[in-house]
Amino acid sequence: MSTAWTSRYALRTKGIKSSAIRELLKLTQNPEVISFAGGLPASDFFPIERFEEACRKVLEKNAAAALQYGETEGYGPLRDMIARHTSRYGIKAQTENVLITTGSQQALDLIGKLLINLGDRILVEAPTYLGALQAFSAYGAEYLSVPCDEDGLRIDLLEAPLRAGPKFMYVLPNFQNPGGTTLAEDRRRTLVLLADRYGIPIVEDDPYGQLRYEGEHLPSLVVLDRENVPRDSGYTLGNVIYLSTFSKTLAPGLRLGWIVAPPEVIAKLAQLKQGTDLHTSTFAQVVAYEVARDNFLDEHVKRLRVVYRERRDVMLEALAQTFPTEVTWTRPKGGLFLWVTLAKGMDANELFKEALKQNVAFVPGDSFFAPDGLGEESNRHLRLNFSHARPEEIREGIRRLSVAVKNQLQQTPAVRRA
Amino acid sequence: MSTAWTSRYALRTKGIKSSAIRELLKLTQNPEVISFAGGLPASDFFPIERFEEACRKVLEKNAAAALQYGETEGYGPLRDMIARHTSRYGIKAQTENVLITTGSQQALDLIGKLLINLGDRILVEAPTYLGALQAFSAYGAEYLSVPCDEDGLRIDLLEAPLRAGPKFMYVLPNFQNPGGTTLAEDRRRTLVLLADRYGIPIVEDDPYGQLRYEGEHLPSLVVLDRENVPRDSGYTLGNVIYLSTFSKTLAPGLRLGWIVAPPEVIAKLAQLKQGTDLHTSTFAQVVAYEVARDNFLDEHVKRLRVVYRERRDVMLEALAQTFPTEVTWTRPKGGLFLWVTLAKGMDANELFKEALKQNVAFVPGDSFFAPDGLGEESNRHLRLNFSHARPEEIREGIRRLSVAVKNQLQQTPAVRRA
Repeated sequence: MSTAWTSRYALRTKGIKSSAIRELLKLTQNPEVISFAGGLPASDFFPIERFEEACRKVLEKNAAAALQYGETEGYGPLRDMIARHTSRYGIKAQTENVLITTGSQQALDLIGKLLINLGDRILVEAPTYLGALQAFSAYGAEYLSVPCDEDGLRIDLLEAPLRAGPKFMYVLPNFQNPGGTTLAEDRRRTLVLLADRYGIPIVEDDPYGQLRYEGEHLPSLVVLDRENVPRDSGYTLGNVIYLSTFSKTLAPGLRLGWIVAPPEVIAKLAQLKQGTDLHTSTFAQVVAYEVARDNFLDEHVKRLRVVYRERRDVMLEALAQTFPTEVTWTRPKGGLFLWVTLAKGMDANELFKEALKQNVAFVPGDSFFAPDGLGEESNRHLRLNFSHARPEEIREGIRRLSVAVKNQLQQTPAVRRA
Repeated sequence: MSTAWTSRYALRTKGIKSSAIRELLKLTQNPEVISFAGGLPASDFFPIERFEEACRKVLEKNAAAALQYGETEGYGPLRDMIARHTSRYGIKAQTENVLITTGSQQALDLIGKLLINLGDRILVEAPTYLGALQAFSAYGAEYLSVPCDEDGLRIDLLEAPLRAGPKFMYVLPNFQNPGGTTLAEDRRRTLVLLADRYGIPIVEDDPYGQLRYEGEHLPSLVVLDRENVPRDSGYTLGNVIYLSTFSKTLAPGLRLGWIVAPPEVIAKLAQLKQGTDLHTSTFAQVVAYEVARDNFLDEHVKRLRVVYRERRDVMLEALAQTFPTEVTWTRPKGGLFLWVTLAKGMDANELFKEALKQNVAFVPGDSFFAPDGLGEESNRHLRLNFSHARPEEIREGIRRLSVAVKNQLQQTPAVRRA
């Protein structure tokens, strides 16, 4: 008796990736451990004084709005600000094109809820963002994985999976999570043309676009796609919907992300969002607006770029100094992550255990592959975050990790490495 | 071209109740309109100074935690506080039994996500909370509606629908939304016994339980259910999971609700929540904890009871003074709503149009019925909120509404009223 819950709730979670990784990552909360595992921004650089000022202002002048129920689509002035901001990068967005979400993760969930029926296939990069796989799998998604190289998604391998009829494509063109790679401009142009030819929508996830440490900003897919829309068609947005977030530029604790899409898609997503959480915290939205306004966020992001570029450089230098030559890594031009490829025969999950003994942590790479993308090579990778630890911790953490890597490399039989 | 989104997103939203009501309610935002439509707490009584103090403290002492990513299950001290709070009412909850959600609405969404497969039937009250129908319908739920009377759910009509094998029962025992009714204690006892006999889990939604204006607190279903669990079974929670929220007692703009359930159910729900929004705003959670702590919330709720009881009484008095005798209404002992039943032949949707001409608004009752519960009578009801408008506005609003009611009553042919 009294176990009706226990017997009935087993059904839905079949499609969901094991939470083994979550359990694993709990081990990294030991303060002795230097963790490169999370996707955490630097806690030392949260603009706390600006938040204090913003909270004071909001509660003095706008408390009733900030604490009361709000519109499902989001706080009007914040939607306006995001539309203006987005428009600077050539994305012609109006307020009606913006839906505020409870972090980008909710954007992925709502897109899954709207589009995915059991067994639908989603075209994803291999590797891709773990959280997107979780969001889509909850609705019964299957996957068509397309490999990436140092210039991002391998466009030359795209036609066969497109012909297989995916429901949509999910891509992270800038400083990809986990790979750290950026999709080359010519590939972007080809990608939107192919999407258009096959009539496959694109979800462009861009949490890191503003965190570029070198080189020029590349046009986003939503902008390139728009260039293909005939001027007289009435479309201001077409085949691509665009996601971004305050989590990496302002503070993830706010849980504020957004979707930019045609108004009829926003209306459908808002209807679903209403049943999901009514709306995103108005308090968080109003405070974030007050923090970000009057160009503060732009100035803040400039400071973050300096901090994160330094941390990236420290990590790259430490890797070059301490890691054996059999191991390689990406050199990201922005974002928060780099992607390490171990020597043949090495195993990132085994290395994780060894690394914990050395008090250093990372995320083993296989979590970032959809089941169909889990090839022989998928256990040879690790994702390293360089934004959260301080420079001296990065040096020490990479030193510890190099010890674990060398230990494992020695134990790897030469025959497996061949 | 460029319409892949438009052609593909049509699929999922079939099951979702029309947003006609949402569009309708936008009309009520005209400042000339006195609205009894929303479920809004009184904006004048938000504890703004306490929020100011809390924000200051949090940003001074705990900013890194408040602005950074947090655990999916919620902010530890807040979970503890909720467990302790809940335990005062006899619900033996520990931290591990509590999952923080982005409002109660997300609790309903996660439960739907976990349990409902296309075509599963959910046993609901008729009428029931509109937002629950939205949440469940998004996963393809169908319904078994059981009528309510002034003592809540008609337990005497429960066996046939239970035999039909619903996936779970969704009930609001205290000051139900929209009916304002409270489930009688003997019915509560019978309900948990029946649920147990048929092995059907119960979702007990209790947003208003603390807002009681008269009479004694009745034991919640989760407590009565526990009395049925043998002492040696090891279960501290059984067949009922319990939902509540800060939306009506503290501030809905925070979007903070919670689920109390056995740890293995919490673990499954947390796994789903991770894919849905990673976690609820840490900023909102840490601030809410700082506001609520040291008994502040209890004291605040005492003040709210006085305010809302007065508003309820003013509305009841105004209804008695101005409404024709053919129209009746419930007399809620707590909560935010009362439920009006029009004379036979009258139509609440027609009345809504008439009411808007008089600058007063409400929610027509048919939105609160699942499709199978939409009988002949379902268009005879309106939900009135008495917590948001000030007493003088309530008097004036009910006067205006009585004009609309009388106008419609006069136009209703006697033959239809027979």
